[in-house]
Amino acid sequence: MLRPILTLTTDFGLSDHYVGTMKGVILGICRQAQIVDISHEVAPFEITEGAYLIAQAYRYFPKKTVHVVVVDPGVGSARRPILMEAAGQYFVAPDNGVLSMVYSHEKHKVRLIANQRYFRKPVSGTFHGRDIFAPVAAHMALGARPSSVGKLIEDYLRPAFEQPARSGKRTWNGQILKIDRFGNIVTNFRISEFPDLERRNFTLGIGPYQITVMARHYAECGPGELFAIAGSSGYVEVSVHQGSAAKHIGCVAGAGVELTVW
Amino acid sequence: MLRPILTLTTDFGLSDHYVGTMKGVILGICRQAQIVDISHEVAPFEITEGAYLIAQAYRYFPKKTVHVVVVDPGVGSARRPILMEAAGQYFVAPDNGVLSMVYSHEKHKVRLIANQRYFRKPVSGTFHGRDIFAPVAAHMALGARPSSVGKLIEDYLRPAFEQPARSGKRTWNGQILKIDRFGNIVTNFRISEFPDLERRNFTLGIGPYQITVMARHYAECGPGELFAIAGSSGYVEVSVHQGSAAKHIGCVAGAGVELTVW
Amino acid sequence: MLRPILTLTTDFGLSDHYVGTMKGVILGICRQAQIVDISHEVAPFEITEGAYLIAQAYRYFPKKTVHVVVVDPGVGSARRPILMEAAGQYFVAPDNGVLSMVYSHEKHKVRLIANQRYFRKPVSGTFHGRDIFAPVAAHMALGARPSSVGKLIEDYLRPAFEQPARSGKRTWNGQILKIDRFGNIVTNFRISEFPDLERRNFTLGIGPYQITVMARHYAECGPGELFAIAGSSGYVEVSVHQGSAAKHIGCVAGAGVELTVW
Repeated sequence: MLRPILTLTTDFGLSDHYVGTMKGVILGICRQAQIVDISHEVAPFEITEGAYLIAQAYRYFPKKTVHVVVVDPGVGSARRPILMEAAGQYFVAPDNGVLSMVYSHEKHKVRLIANQRYFRKPVSGTFHGRDIFAPVAAHMALGARPSSVGKLIEDYLRPAFEQPARSGKRTWNGQILKIDRFGNIVTNFRISEFPDLERRNFTLGIGPYQITVMARHYAECGPGELFAIAGSSGYVEVSVHQGSAAKHIGCVAGAGVELTVW
Repeated sequence: MLRPILTLTTDFGLSDHYVGTMKGVILGICRQAQIVDISHEVAPFEITEGAYLIAQAYRYFPKKTVHVVVVDPGVGSARRPILMEAAGQYFVAPDNGVLSMVYSHEKHKVRLIANQRYFRKPVSGTFHGRDIFAPVAAHMALGARPSSVGKLIEDYLRPAFEQPARSGKRTWNGQILKIDRFGNIVTNFRISEFPDLERRNFTLGIGPYQITVMARHYAECGPGELFAIAGSSGYVEVSVHQGSAAKHIGCVAGAGVELTVW
Repeated sequence: MLRPILTLTTDFGLSDHYVGTMKGVILGICRQAQIVDISHEVAPFEITEGAYLIAQAYRYFPKKTVHVVVVDPGVGSARRPILMEAAGQYFVAPDNGVLSMVYSHEKHKVRLIANQRYFRKPVSGTFHGRDIFAPVAAHMALGARPSSVGKLIEDYLRPAFEQPARSGKRTWNGQILKIDRFGNIVTNFRISEFPDLERRNFTLGIGPYQITVMARHYAECGPGELFAIAGSSGYVEVSVHQGSAAKHIGCVAGAGVELTVW
């Protein structure tokens, strides 16, 4: 029998016991689970960053994988825990928009997590990752039916941070979704919506910088030259060969980006 | 058959090969082991921090779990390696107090690790994590009997860093055990020993700051307001909603905290 | 049946989805794989550091382990992907020298990875860790024959960054291979080539500092005293008891070291 896969994406970092504790809870319920860390280095409370990471990672996992996503500034308040089914996989998370970049790519169903039999007792006011999300995910990995967790809801939160806004005939205002470890700047312009940038004239403006070159791989341009590239993320990214484009430009996640194509 | 679980808690960090090497040694002895990282980001040589992390994490793991704890400033000197049995689990560590917060919560037995057949040869003078602790733990996971490792001892080290000292009729002097990733300040005042703070008047003094409010969850207080909270750790913690209380106050682990209740 | 072991060594860091994505790809092909992280904190593009880490770690893993090493500044360019067989294990990496410290210790065979049936399609220009190295490694873990991956080659890159140069009758010029988490300085002087330093007079010069003492373990010297030690790495290391020798001296990886023995 195949061992069930669970993934974890949190803002818990790796210097506390929080992640290890969640894994202990999971293994106590579903001993055969194969647990994979996506990242625990989401900046504290940064829902957009968590949303980006899980949306990037889930598509590479097998059917039936259970993804636990805990970026949860509202823990202990009235925000709801949810279970989403999409792409043949399960996602367990707070209802704060952290799954919204999956919603926008996949047919999905969202349930309110209500069945307290799956919770760890007593449920603390400060660590639902341990007391609600981890044990519910472990029960899903064990084979629980989604309908046993709670009822379908329609009013889950759907922020739209990944949509650029058209601001003119040839101009869009977007934003930076993520700066990666190498200093690559991931914008929210999807390659699939701007598929022909390589063959067009364009300018991508970030702060005082104007990028006008589209490269196919990192080694194509000279040292220090900023270029756009169709990143592995599926978005237009801005890079410098063997350097940090984000440091070069001096920009951070959330900053605005303007694209003009003609 | 259930796969045995081993956990690792060290100050080795993640930028060297040390943790990977220990896992190779473990899998070479006990191929079916399920290895879980608690944390490798204990500050170098900080025994108190390691003691706090393993004491927080172990209770969420199944019986028979083997915990390896290596925060070991005295590696290669006369300090002894020990095996502890507590709560139906095993703990392998240097005898320097790093297990002392488990001692104080659980009935336990401590053995001197002496059976060199379980060691990796030759034993280096600088990396007992690889040569002693990892292989002994792997043999425990394989099913070795505790008595085969070594004899019971009574004179293991028992520092008492988690005990506040009563300094007056209504006053206790404690300390900060840990600053977590979110800047929450974990004191060594146990909730179970001060169970009624929510219904009493109190002041918790850290540096020039006096905290007088007890909240039930993080979202309850306004931005920038310091409050105490019954943390998931089992200790009184000090927090700021969506901010870092430690940065706000400017304090570090080990600093003093004064509690007055009336 | 034994679960196959795969290890990962990269410069991807842990704050992006890259590592999690590679694990998803691996588990999609070889569900029973046991994946072990060596390190993902290799400094971006630092081939020497990646070469050091995998050469330190591989010898502690069982036969048939598949090591994936991705430090790959030339991704998408003409640099080749290779499969190495050495020590009864497999290594999958770009042909940029990142396996060279294994070459120099083990009999080995190197193949050009050419069989595109093992690749993830389409192969991106920016993330061969996901599209080539992870899936090829997973197929090796599943039992693919090395010859099915590609033909043997002889002209793979062999930089020699671990060889000190003799500069006089009693003098060698070496370099710093790695600063570890504790500030220990790992030089490229092998213990096995300088086995009798403990019984000889020597000076090891790093910047303005001259180390003349050889210790057997960290606790042997006084606080603040620099000493050389036969490190667990197999190289001569420079340390300070419970302090950072690298901070003390103010040196970084790649810096020169001069050894004089008489």
